[in-house]
Amino acid sequence: MSFQGEQQPGVVPSPEQTQGFRLNHTMLRVKDPAQALAFYSQVFGMQVMRRLDFEEMQFSLYFLANLEADDNVPEDTQARTAWTFSQKGLLELTHNWGTENQQDFAYHDGNAEPQGFGHICFSVPDLAAAQAWFDEHDVTFVKRAYQGKMKDVIFVKDPDGYWIEVIQADLMAGKGD
Amino acid sequence: MSFQGEQQPGVVPSPEQTQGFRLNHTMLRVKDPAQALAFYSQVFGMQVMRRLDFEEMQFSLYFLANLEADDNVPEDTQARTAWTFSQKGLLELTHNWGTENQQDFAYHDGNAEPQGFGHICFSVPDLAAAQAWFDEHDVTFVKRAYQGKMKDVIFVKDPDGYWIEVIQADLMAGKGD
Repeated sequence: MSFQGEQQPGVVPSPEQTQGFRLNHTMLRVKDPAQALAFYSQVFGMQVMRRLDFEEMQFSLYFLANLEADDNVPEDTQARTAWTFSQKGLLELTHNWGTENQQDFAYHDGNAEPQGFGHICFSVPDLAAAQAWFDEHDVTFVKRAYQGKMKDVIFVKDPDGYWIEVIQADLMAGKGD
Repeated sequence: MSFQGEQQPGVVPSPEQTQGFRLNHTMLRVKDPAQALAFYSQVFGMQVMRRLDFEEMQFSLYFLANLEADDNVPEDTQARTAWTFSQKGLLELTHNWGTENQQDFAYHDGNAEPQGFGHICFSVPDLAAAQAWFDEHDVTFVKRAYQGKMKDVIFVKDPDGYWIEVIQADLMAGKGD
């Protein structure tokens, strides 16, 4: 039988009523969608599965995914929208129209005070290759793989200053006490 | 051929160097892990795949997943850790030791000022059933499915006040202009 979860304070077995629940996406507000989309497509290989515009409320939403070889994404817009909202691990970028033209406008990264949200994290097949790739694109590092107490973990910033952790799954096995 | 992504300002085709990149998790700091774990396991069906403790830095990390019938999670701790960090759509909860005993301590949800992070979102098979399920557990609603301009979209709060969107994939097909 497959592992069913660690016994930790507060944890109960997953009720039947939660079957099929999936963490579809995380939403971050971005100042300039063109900059954010250039970054997440070029550096992290994400593509826009669906853009939704809300004229009355003056904002747009971009739903981004890392497509894999066996993903079969429908061309038809309605079918593709339903596909998008049934996946795991997407990123939603929210653009409130006009912020890209406000010189002093900036979003809060959640790591400066007041703290809350910390980061999103990408798993990559080769951490050293990823670090070289980020350098090639002049990505801003918070920390490189060899720095700090947590080795083999990279943190970079996206164009809005949000932190992105980058890890290689098999290098994580020995972490923690 | 499968859909390859919308043409949007800034977007470039995914470079070969980003193959295998996956959005593994989103990290939120929580005040009281027992409360947060009770909530995410009972109400959203998540289980702890791995807890990592860092004695020197006085914090613990909990990596949560919604397990599916065809997930084959290794029992062995090292193999399970590697499995955990190769998945999509996990939630990482960070507990800085002692915050649970500080009466006035609270994290920032990102929706009050200063804004940044907005929410995480679960896709569920049956939105009406999910809404009844949340009521059964006295979950705090930000908005119910019938309220506001965005119908068929629920927002609730977790114990730390972070917003959680809840959607049903096929009901999203007609959204946006």
